[in-house]
Amino acid sequence: MTVMFIIGLGVLSLLVAFFFARQVGAISIAEGAANEHEADRLKEISTAISEGAMAFLGREYRILALFMAIFGVVIYFAVVDSGGATMFAFFAGAGISILSGYIGMRIATLGNVRTAAAARISLEKSFSIAFRSGAVMGFGLTGFAILGMILVYLGLEKMLPGLSKEALMEILSGFGLGGSSVALFGRVGGGIYTKAADVGADLVGKVEAGIPEDDPRNPAVIADNVGDNVGDIAGMGADLFGSVAESTCAALVIGAVAFEATTDETLKMNAMLFPILASAIGIVASLISLFFARPKTEDKVEGALKLTLIISTIIMGIALYPLTMMMVPADFSLTLGGTVYHNTGVFYSLAAGLISGMLIGLITEYYTSHRYKPVREVANASETGSATNIIYGLSLGYNSAVLPMVLIAVTVVIGISFAGMYGIAMAAIGMLGTIAVGLTIDAYGPVSDNAGGIAEMAEMGKDIRKRTDALDAAGNTTAAIGKGFAIGSAALTSLALTSAFLTRAHLDTINMMDPKVLAGILLGGALPFAFSAMTMRSVGQAAFDMIAEVRRQFREIPGLLEGKPGVRADYRKCVDISTAASLRQMIAPGLLVILTPLLVGFMFGVHTLAGVLIGALVVGVMLAISMANSGGAWDNAKKYIETGQLGGKGSDTHKAAVVGDTVGDPFKDTSGPALNILIKLMAIISLVFVPFFVKYGGMLLNK
Amino acid sequence: MTVMFIIGLGVLSLLVAFFFARQVGAISIAEGAANEHEADRLKEISTAISEGAMAFLGREYRILALFMAIFGVVIYFAVVDSGGATMFAFFAGAGISILSGYIGMRIATLGNVRTAAAARISLEKSFSIAFRSGAVMGFGLTGFAILGMILVYLGLEKMLPGLSKEALMEILSGFGLGGSSVALFGRVGGGIYTKAADVGADLVGKVEAGIPEDDPRNPAVIADNVGDNVGDIAGMGADLFGSVAESTCAALVIGAVAFEATTDETLKMNAMLFPILASAIGIVASLISLFFARPKTEDKVEGALKLTLIISTIIMGIALYPLTMMMVPADFSLTLGGTVYHNTGVFYSLAAGLISGMLIGLITEYYTSHRYKPVREVANASETGSATNIIYGLSLGYNSAVLPMVLIAVTVVIGISFAGMYGIAMAAIGMLGTIAVGLTIDAYGPVSDNAGGIAEMAEMGKDIRKRTDALDAAGNTTAAIGKGFAIGSAALTSLALTSAFLTRAHLDTINMMDPKVLAGILLGGALPFAFSAMTMRSVGQAAFDMIAEVRRQFREIPGLLEGKPGVRADYRKCVDISTAASLRQMIAPGLLVILTPLLVGFMFGVHTLAGVLIGALVVGVMLAISMANSGGAWDNAKKYIETGQLGGKGSDTHKAAVVGDTVGDPFKDTSGPALNILIKLMAIISLVFVPFFVKYGGMLLNK
Repeated sequence: MTVMFIIGLGVLSLLVAFFFARQVGAISIAEGAANEHEADRLKEISTAISEGAMAFLGREYRILALFMAIFGVVIYFAVVDSGGATMFAFFAGAGISILSGYIGMRIATLGNVRTAAAARISLEKSFSIAFRSGAVMGFGLTGFAILGMILVYLGLEKMLPGLSKEALMEILSGFGLGGSSVALFGRVGGGIYTKAADVGADLVGKVEAGIPEDDPRNPAVIADNVGDNVGDIAGMGADLFGSVAESTCAALVIGAVAFEATTDETLKMNAMLFPILASAIGIVASLISLFFARPKTEDKVEGALKLTLIISTIIMGIALYPLTMMMVPADFSLTLGGTVYHNTGVFYSLAAGLISGMLIGLITEYYTSHRYKPVREVANASETGSATNIIYGLSLGYNSAVLPMVLIAVTVVIGISFAGMYGIAMAAIGMLGTIAVGLTIDAYGPVSDNAGGIAEMAEMGKDIRKRTDALDAAGNTTAAIGKGFAIGSAALTSLALTSAFLTRAHLDTINMMDPKVLAGILLGGALPFAFSAMTMRSVGQAAFDMIAEVRRQFREIPGLLEGKPGVRADYRKCVDISTAASLRQMIAPGLLVILTPLLVGFMFGVHTLAGVLIGALVVGVMLAISMANSGGAWDNAKKYIETGQLGGKGSDTHKAAVVGDTVGDPFKDTSGPALNILIKLMAIISLVFVPFFVKYGGMLLNK
Repeated sequence: MTVMFIIGLGVLSLLVAFFFARQVGAISIAEGAANEHEADRLKEISTAISEGAMAFLGREYRILALFMAIFGVVIYFAVVDSGGATMFAFFAGAGISILSGYIGMRIATLGNVRTAAAARISLEKSFSIAFRSGAVMGFGLTGFAILGMILVYLGLEKMLPGLSKEALMEILSGFGLGGSSVALFGRVGGGIYTKAADVGADLVGKVEAGIPEDDPRNPAVIADNVGDNVGDIAGMGADLFGSVAESTCAALVIGAVAFEATTDETLKMNAMLFPILASAIGIVASLISLFFARPKTEDKVEGALKLTLIISTIIMGIALYPLTMMMVPADFSLTLGGTVYHNTGVFYSLAAGLISGMLIGLITEYYTSHRYKPVREVANASETGSATNIIYGLSLGYNSAVLPMVLIAVTVVIGISFAGMYGIAMAAIGMLGTIAVGLTIDAYGPVSDNAGGIAEMAEMGKDIRKRTDALDAAGNTTAAIGKGFAIGSAALTSLALTSAFLTRAHLDTINMMDPKVLAGILLGGALPFAFSAMTMRSVGQAAFDMIAEVRRQFREIPGLLEGKPGVRADYRKCVDISTAASLRQMIAPGLLVILTPLLVGFMFGVHTLAGVLIGALVVGVMLAISMANSGGAWDNAKKYIETGQLGGKGSDTHKAAVVGDTVGDPFKDTSGPALNILIKLMAIISLVFVPFFVKYGGMLLNK
């Protein structure tokens, strides 16, 4: 029954996605275009972006396939109990993540040009296309995630009936690892791509050549628009899919221990399935909230998007209480004869995650929207030059990370106090409960951002651009909310995985003052800084390649810079450069993330590894939130000045604000979000290989 | 015997300081001045700086006195076993720190003008004055610290012969707390002062009015020079005095437990005194190394300064081995029937601290000197504008923190593995072993920096300025080394204090996955970000006050900006503004540091507090090192360009580099170093009040 219910909800989610995709696809570009010439131009630009995006995905997936094959072999041999099945689950997790990313990219590149074209008809029409494109991603990914998890779980039960608890845990974590490995490529590779193109396009185009943003003369302009899809659609999707898969795995792994003693077999089965069911219920809550996204005027867009998030949170909270009471045993314990927890405690954990997720979103909005004081202070500080703009922006970022961290800490305390380590996993699932709508408003952002770019490139005129700008501005804020959300859930997911790791290592005490552990905490704390330094430099290096190419084209293609009719930049070359550079530049940070837990676990053992995970988590979360919010604030401080405040566009104050915006690009779209992957991927690798570490690990220390 | 030896070394240190002070004071300014007019002008400027510095100290000490009185009362009542004596020790620690700061400031303001004047005679003469001024600070402070600690220890033994071990621990920690409280004012208040003046002077003077740095027309120029003394002399001195006092206290507190079982009374006494003796031996090592500081040409200055550090480290390492074997019992244990440690282990700990201190210094030099690749990359990145300059500088800072953290982790592992928690304290003492010479080359920096400023203001000519610039450039690098050193030792000191805190709380296991502890780690991790946001904003706010005043003077004093002869800016007003603003702006960050451990300990108990200390440490160290090194690198990237590279002074590349330099100012001189105080002060407050927390703490959680 429960299984059928979950499958039903998963299928519903896919149907919603399919329905919206059909709707978006059915809209004709020609309907919105002013004339046939414009329609052709729109199609041409859209094809270039779409081809660029698919070219990137193609190259990325080829490298990814190689990586998966190698890692698959490692898993096959190093995973102690059931290497083969774990490898299969690993491929399944990766496959679903890839599929979701691919679908998201396709619909985003269908939706962006249609959003631009519809902007000529009405704001409502334009908004609804961008929003529905986002919903395809949100509901499609959630549906695939739910179905994937339940099918892997069922497949295991049917095909391997005598499966040991150990093996089950391993195989489930393999699924999460697959999802997270794709996220590494999406977030790090995609993050480098998007900002290399953006920074390269801006520095040569806006600063050197003095042409506006998204100007069709700029050879990097298509690459820049491709980047939005690569980073913000595929990357964000893979990241959040990873979080859902991993937090569910963590819950299943800990649940396998927690409900071992439950004698009622139906109840036991329900309890095991509960983490998946809780995510599935979010689909219904998200679906209902969609009906509230109907902004009538331009200034209502941001509010409408925020409203969907709040409504889905409330519905979800109400629905979870009876479900939890029904599905989870009244009493359970995580260790033999240990503390007894209750199903009410599981509900408190879920609710804590759900509510703090929403609050983190709202706090993020406060710090990154120019309707509030913090961003305006950054804008004001630009009046004394770019140095004060940078100082205020950095300090805003530092500040903005404090309250979210407090919320995470409170959530963790509630989770552990009321439901032990199981509570942390349930808090993560709670926070990710509204992911279908969260991802919808998140993916809405790059679609409308792209629409603005396309309108500019197709020279659709100022009025149209103003309309798409209004959609884009709201998208900027919701993107920031989405990032806060992604980091918060990554933190809880990572803690849940660490808990699952400790459960599997049969450790319930990790003494912080044990030198092995303390050294781990200190080393772990150094990792986010090492990783961020790498990703920031990667953006810099890739951007230099792009700058050189743009300069070359301006120099060598006659008439390009002057805008001679018929002269086109070689967009494809820039797309190629971004693709090649980003995939090359992600190798070093990628290896750091993957090798650190393997080497630490193998050389120093599980105690040190536990320390590394916690150290990396604390530092990583603070750094990630502060980077994302500094970047968002700089971006919106610039946008605030562009609304005509403090001298407006072109003033010295504006120039100072542009510096902050450029620094913020790799902060908010590369290094910050990539830290999510650092903390989650290290934790899931530790979880998958823990029996290996317990058996062979710690060779450099006395165990 | 041992006592007499320690006192003898302390007195020797003071004699060295006194001797150098006499030498510096005896030099006549007129001798170096070109004519009587120049001599008068030099004296006038020097008097203004000296008066400004003393005015700041006067106001700071008045507020400090009030603070000490209130905190003294809190200690009197809240310290469980011996409030009165602890309060007395608290005042003694503070008094010595204040005295050292005062002497350092006096000699620095004597030395700076004489260094400038002597630059007309020869480089060697000029260098030796700046270096000896630094040595007065280095040896004076070390002597006072050693004498203070031994006298407090003896006084306790004589006056309170029946003193319980508990009370002894408390009183000793009170001494450390006193030192650290002064450091809070010196580092945070002083740090805000120095950068408010610097940023204010630069933004209006260099950027708006287009006049050179240190130009006498700039009303903030005296305040800027005062700031160097306030922040880099008094602040740095108080910080390092705090580290010495605190790490010694931690060693004494843990030693009181470690050597309890030793039956040979002389050996027991020696072992207790060993931490103080180890510091005292450093005086001899430092003294010998001074003879190697004899640079003949301008490009040898940096090498000569570095050589003193390396030589003193080697001598110290050799001397410590026989001493440790002689003074520390062959076997000891930190808990009844626990692991047995040996005196060789104590030596390993000391050596690990000593060596890693030197290595951290050299790594810092690599990342901040423009003779190496990292800074040159930042300079190259300035060619594409200030945004890339900022991105590369930040990424350099992140990267530069990784290896020092690894060294700290290795040191901690060696310390704990070979000598338990006592080993951490000894590692801290080892790292601070060469503090006399470390502080000498550190204080040398601001003296020669000031000398350059004075030469400019007195219009002594380009040749003289070139000579002082060479001295100053070397000082910049040694200042960065000193900062690395200060942070590294602060980390070890804080860990040592945390160990002592746990020892006093009778906890030897702190379970990281206990929700109370985990929440503490997460909250602790948020503190350095909150604190840095506050201090950076404080600099911004104070700088705005300064900017307004400088603009007013340029506007209202006729002929000032044009440089009309006889027209002088109102320097005193700017000094007043910096003083008032910095003391006002330090209240909020100061309260955060002091109240956090008190509230956490009282409300959540010692487990959470232990988590907070470790979380704050990990994040704080990474942030502090990265901020200090980003700042140092930006500064030197600008200086590198000013040597004529990449277009030289006045080019667009140079302008881009100036932005980084300005952002780096609060990074390297305010927020970064202030984090040392955050992590140390929270730990010592926890240590002092631990019996109170054990008795009454944790009211909000089930204990």
